[in-house]
Amino acid sequence: MSAPKKVVLAYSGGLDTSIILKWLQTEYRCEVVTFTADLGQGEELEPARAKAEMLGIAPSNIYIEDVREEFVRDFVFPMFRANALYEGLYLLGTSIARPLISKRLVEIAHETGADAVAHGATGKGNDQVRFELSAYALDPAIKVIAPWREWDLTSRTKLLEFAEAHQIPIAKNKRGEAPFSVDANLLHTSSEGRVLEDPGQEAPDYVYQRVTRPEEAPDAPEMVEIAFEKGDAVAINGEAMSPATILTRLNELGGKHGIGILDLVENRFVGMKSRGVYETPGGTILLEAHRGIEQITLDSGAGHLKDWLMPRYAELIYNGFWFSPEREMLQAAIDKSQEHVTGTVRVKLYKGSARTVARWSDHSLYSEAHVTFEEDAGAYDQKDAEGFIRLNALRLKLLATRNAKFK
Amino acid sequence: MSAPKKVVLAYSGGLDTSIILKWLQTEYRCEVVTFTADLGQGEELEPARAKAEMLGIAPSNIYIEDVREEFVRDFVFPMFRANALYEGLYLLGTSIARPLISKRLVEIAHETGADAVAHGATGKGNDQVRFELSAYALDPAIKVIAPWREWDLTSRTKLLEFAEAHQIPIAKNKRGEAPFSVDANLLHTSSEGRVLEDPGQEAPDYVYQRVTRPEEAPDAPEMVEIAFEKGDAVAINGEAMSPATILTRLNELGGKHGIGILDLVENRFVGMKSRGVYETPGGTILLEAHRGIEQITLDSGAGHLKDWLMPRYAELIYNGFWFSPEREMLQAAIDKSQEHVTGTVRVKLYKGSARTVARWSDHSLYSEAHVTFEEDAGAYDQKDAEGFIRLNALRLKLLATRNAKFK
Amino acid sequence: MSAPKKVVLAYSGGLDTSIILKWLQTEYRCEVVTFTADLGQGEELEPARAKAEMLGIAPSNIYIEDVREEFVRDFVFPMFRANALYEGLYLLGTSIARPLISKRLVEIAHETGADAVAHGATGKGNDQVRFELSAYALDPAIKVIAPWREWDLTSRTKLLEFAEAHQIPIAKNKRGEAPFSVDANLLHTSSEGRVLEDPGQEAPDYVYQRVTRPEEAPDAPEMVEIAFEKGDAVAINGEAMSPATILTRLNELGGKHGIGILDLVENRFVGMKSRGVYETPGGTILLEAHRGIEQITLDSGAGHLKDWLMPRYAELIYNGFWFSPEREMLQAAIDKSQEHVTGTVRVKLYKGSARTVARWSDHSLYSEAHVTFEEDAGAYDQKDAEGFIRLNALRLKLLATRNAKFK
Amino acid sequence: MSAPKKVVLAYSGGLDTSIILKWLQTEYRCEVVTFTADLGQGEELEPARAKAEMLGIAPSNIYIEDVREEFVRDFVFPMFRANALYEGLYLLGTSIARPLISKRLVEIAHETGADAVAHGATGKGNDQVRFELSAYALDPAIKVIAPWREWDLTSRTKLLEFAEAHQIPIAKNKRGEAPFSVDANLLHTSSEGRVLEDPGQEAPDYVYQRVTRPEEAPDAPEMVEIAFEKGDAVAINGEAMSPATILTRLNELGGKHGIGILDLVENRFVGMKSRGVYETPGGTILLEAHRGIEQITLDSGAGHLKDWLMPRYAELIYNGFWFSPEREMLQAAIDKSQEHVTGTVRVKLYKGSARTVARWSDHSLYSEAHVTFEEDAGAYDQKDAEGFIRLNALRLKLLATRNAKFK
Repeated sequence: MSAPKKVVLAYSGGLDTSIILKWLQTEYRCEVVTFTADLGQGEELEPARAKAEMLGIAPSNIYIEDVREEFVRDFVFPMFRANALYEGLYLLGTSIARPLISKRLVEIAHETGADAVAHGATGKGNDQVRFELSAYALDPAIKVIAPWREWDLTSRTKLLEFAEAHQIPIAKNKRGEAPFSVDANLLHTSSEGRVLEDPGQEAPDYVYQRVTRPEEAPDAPEMVEIAFEKGDAVAINGEAMSPATILTRLNELGGKHGIGILDLVENRFVGMKSRGVYETPGGTILLEAHRGIEQITLDSGAGHLKDWLMPRYAELIYNGFWFSPEREMLQAAIDKSQEHVTGTVRVKLYKGSARTVARWSDHSLYSEAHVTFEEDAGAYDQKDAEGFIRLNALRLKLLATRNAKFK
Repeated sequence: MSAPKKVVLAYSGGLDTSIILKWLQTEYRCEVVTFTADLGQGEELEPARAKAEMLGIAPSNIYIEDVREEFVRDFVFPMFRANALYEGLYLLGTSIARPLISKRLVEIAHETGADAVAHGATGKGNDQVRFELSAYALDPAIKVIAPWREWDLTSRTKLLEFAEAHQIPIAKNKRGEAPFSVDANLLHTSSEGRVLEDPGQEAPDYVYQRVTRPEEAPDAPEMVEIAFEKGDAVAINGEAMSPATILTRLNELGGKHGIGILDLVENRFVGMKSRGVYETPGGTILLEAHRGIEQITLDSGAGHLKDWLMPRYAELIYNGFWFSPEREMLQAAIDKSQEHVTGTVRVKLYKGSARTVARWSDHSLYSEAHVTFEEDAGAYDQKDAEGFIRLNALRLKLLATRNAKFK
Repeated sequence: MSAPKKVVLAYSGGLDTSIILKWLQTEYRCEVVTFTADLGQGEELEPARAKAEMLGIAPSNIYIEDVREEFVRDFVFPMFRANALYEGLYLLGTSIARPLISKRLVEIAHETGADAVAHGATGKGNDQVRFELSAYALDPAIKVIAPWREWDLTSRTKLLEFAEAHQIPIAKNKRGEAPFSVDANLLHTSSEGRVLEDPGQEAPDYVYQRVTRPEEAPDAPEMVEIAFEKGDAVAINGEAMSPATILTRLNELGGKHGIGILDLVENRFVGMKSRGVYETPGGTILLEAHRGIEQITLDSGAGHLKDWLMPRYAELIYNGFWFSPEREMLQAAIDKSQEHVTGTVRVKLYKGSARTVARWSDHSLYSEAHVTFEEDAGAYDQKDAEGFIRLNALRLKLLATRNAKFK
Repeated sequence: MSAPKKVVLAYSGGLDTSIILKWLQTEYRCEVVTFTADLGQGEELEPARAKAEMLGIAPSNIYIEDVREEFVRDFVFPMFRANALYEGLYLLGTSIARPLISKRLVEIAHETGADAVAHGATGKGNDQVRFELSAYALDPAIKVIAPWREWDLTSRTKLLEFAEAHQIPIAKNKRGEAPFSVDANLLHTSSEGRVLEDPGQEAPDYVYQRVTRPEEAPDAPEMVEIAFEKGDAVAINGEAMSPATILTRLNELGGKHGIGILDLVENRFVGMKSRGVYETPGGTILLEAHRGIEQITLDSGAGHLKDWLMPRYAELIYNGFWFSPEREMLQAAIDKSQEHVTGTVRVKLYKGSARTVARWSDHSLYSEAHVTFEEDAGAYDQKDAEGFIRLNALRLKLLATRNAKFK
């Protein structure tokens, strides 16, 4: 790979990406463009602008954007249509944000004539894969720079020395190692590393930053009603809202009631197991509610097909293949199923759990006439069941007869 | 089908199966053998003996058995190795009991020279299918009698008239319709029908019979440690126990802490949607713990294959195909994966939720050496990630290059 | 089911459906509408009109239609995009025609105010299921009449007696039993029954009606070039043609060269095994060619997903679920994959086999630059493979280390 | 990776692996052990011994073994139980041989105290992955040396110079580039590269080395009867034979009749497409026959599950994951299905095609009594089909009713 001339850096404004910024300038003598996105991580973005300017980035090379609506509308919601869970439990909060960042990095590269993008993910994790597969899928000629895999700043001491040598301000609380590493966006906060590295030790309480401990959540349950149209949430308690507003509001509710915490050991794409603590308050409610509305509006054939496709879909997103033809094929199938997933679900929130307690819809497939214990006025002929069972049993009978010959 | 001469009836001792007993005698003039099983439903069995005798069954034709250990060891535990959930949420508590009952019905038919078995499931539900597919798979020549699909006792009034005409005692509280229908065993209690028939109405509190309402559960969380060997739970808090004892103990813990309640609209095999309330206290803890121990002892390739097979496996059990070659094939694959699923999980129980907070095992695949944020002494070369990503990206680059030609 | 007032009958003009026509008139005293479709079965349709008139059908109640283009365009081609094979071998020639016939039956019922449709399939086969599931999916209120499951004309003798009693003309060669039963359309000819009922006996030569015996096919191979656009064949040897014309032309070529014969024992949806002989000359070439063009234009992620979905897709069509949400979901995924399946394939036809020998496309993903044994000018860095392998091996190494502890 | 001290080399005796042998000695100054296996590639092995000795290998370090029986019994036959085809067409002839070679390399390393193994696969292909994943799975501490990824002998000229400089004899016909590259074993011969690199150009006739061109095959068809026990072929034309003998005999038959040639563009695991010509004469017959015997002895539930698992199974083998827990899980499921796959198949061989024409078995599930067009003496009640269809249709009717509301 020839040296990059102009690099778009995913820049948070924090110490690490500031070091990367300076390292890119010194290592490659290249022009740096910074991209700082508001994904709902809950931090002010303007300080990133000031810091970038201080580090010598031209104002026209500083991109700061609020991408929360795009994030929820085009990434989070399509994923939730699939009821996606990685390894049965993980709501993919980090995984789903990476392709959007890469998409903007590549677009900004094209706008600014940059030939490379750079990110601050390490060489051990999944995020490097997600960033880079997305970037290559969107621009096969783009260069991707992953400083953590390249440089020799392999210890905290060396990083701080580099920062000092290049006049990068170091906040007091950044002098020592953080007790764990955090990633946050509108969908979730994840924590991993250091104090969490032994999966046989419980995570200390201070790891949980976003969700109230269930023990401290309100003593009274709270009901929330979520309305869906074609598989996407569109209103809360009767009030229509934009996608990001909905997720924000569900985060408030879930956070208050201790909902969506997960302590997980998962399998990284790069081959190792890692332990993380995830807080996904709004997403956990949303998944529960989406399942609730599908229960009455989705046909069993469609639902069972979705259940069967889901693990593969979730794995693709986890592994970084959002921008792949197979993810798009699965999305086409999933989206096709959501045409009538319209209606309202009531979810009960209480001290760590979110449970569907009622759901209704004009699009309901539930037929009280068929299922009732009362007289059904001929909706269903119980005699039909006999033929149904007998033909389903036919092959089993033939098998049993055959097998008996060889016992 | 020629008329049966001797019938083995799945007999609870309750009013409905007593009516069936008498109906079989009067309709077919056949000898009736009763089979009453203790599956952990929490009822005394001896009254069933007295009642059968009173209805004219010869003592040698009355079978009363405690099958709880067989139920958990040979049915529940194998199913939990798969992390089976039907439609994402249902723990299959009724589905998994039916094949065992059918197996004993057929075995008793063979022991007593009976040519038929009979059950009390209606023509609208899944249980008729499960009973009958199992029976036919175990004895292709057996006759199966499903009185609810045959007789003309199609109203409560007619049933009571029949009972009175045949001196079947009717408990006072059975005169009226029950407000909902219940099935129970060691794994779960399910409720459905009547007051639950509108899925847009919340289930009334009195439906929940087995699990404390989360709001009334203890204010202090409780930890439980579950040890596994080859995928099966073998000890609780360090004390080795038999399978049924383990599930009983987990039921007590879960019931106390409000764990395992589910309000679900599901798709029946016979083609309609139905709404049920399930209480699966011990099973919910067991599933959480099993996932917890798999997180550190199961390889990702094995785990992802299991995730992919699971929905099909669960559907087979739900639909009544426990005794089918494809369920046995899937079981062989699943069991193969459990050879090292050995270790201990700590689960926190609190007001409706059960969450893994720690897990450890001599069989752990988790490598702190690989995952650590600290120096890893060469366990992992971050440079490897570059090649890994580049080759995973190769096809995406070729795609992007091709697709760009046609934009 | 109340008695039908007006019935649309799938009418071939042959003896069996003429008997059904008359039986409907006499049994239900209902008005009959006949629908006779040209699906490419190779028979004149006008005699069916004359016969229907002779049997008392009003001219305005006689529908005779050439649906070949619709059949190939809307049913055969979408299915071939999936490379669908049932049980590894069967090209689904009968299965794919049934939903089209049902669709027209229901549409004609709506046009003519009929309340029922009727078909001539027996109670043992798959076709009854396909006809009826399609009809119910398109009109849930329609009545479906399947005379073979209802009437008492259960022997050849009784059928002929009924025909004679009702002045239905009987061709001389219809007096005796046919030695086997045939279904034909533009995609295939199938034969089953009687002389084919022992799968341990070879099918006699006279069963093969459409494809030249390979031993009698030309001694010289013939090449054919098939062009595809977005997954559908659009031209043969450079000449653009309509869908039905393409299949007709491929049938001629395949029939001439002995291609597409299959002797199969398959599993019917109704639970039994049956043996059939299939002749699918054009379809066999088309499948081979479609695979050939996908080889260079379809990405591996998309292709492997298709391979994984295909058996389920084929099973749905075989079982009669063409008009089901899950088939439509799978179709959406498959169609999404075909956007660049455009290019040309050369297939060699010779004495029973059709083999792709060359394929080329502007949309090709094949990169000679990457794969070449020669210098590749940096297109591919072989060093990348090391990291790729090492990270793919990581979990296997951790497993081996763990497992070694317990040996 | 520290330098290896003693290396076991997969050694063919040819020029390339002789260069590798010498390069290992000179580059690492390490002791070399050679392993030469007879996998049925059709070459004498003793010349490899002489050549190894000439290159300075101690006789005790020269391993020459006939592994044909192990190859067919433990690798080929288990794979054929799955009817494995990669990308719909490829019989995996190269893929299935690699794990066996790696297994022996690692075993010999353990016997001889070697710390490394080496292979002659290039950095662009799949074989490097297969060799190395297998080696790491069997010994996580083993070093693997892949000279083609390491050395600077990147052109034919340099290789020949190195050979001359080290007194490695060069056969006259090895001076120039071979027109294509070949791999062979008892299952297949594959050819790729150079003259085959343009998939739009037909492969020249001289590429086909093992199978007679169909045009030149005998004009008379030949029948062969293959007997199976539990899914494995055990006899040909009534004569019991060992696994390798069976495959050898089928190769002779298939080769004579022009069977098993395939011109394929496939997707390599490392991300690129490549074009290969495969000749798999015996394997093609074996697959056809195995399917034939499964048709009558395998239940549809088992068969459809196998069809669904197969693409994943084949992909695992293609990608080099033979020694992985997920391949072993799938194998457990597949093997479970084969318990009654016992019986005999007659296959007709003629000018390039192998077709099942008859099959019979004491374990047959085919029931003429059920399927017959004649009177079936009550084996099957056609009325059952009505209930079967009506319940299968129920959800489709509910869907149609719902959907109609929104049109």
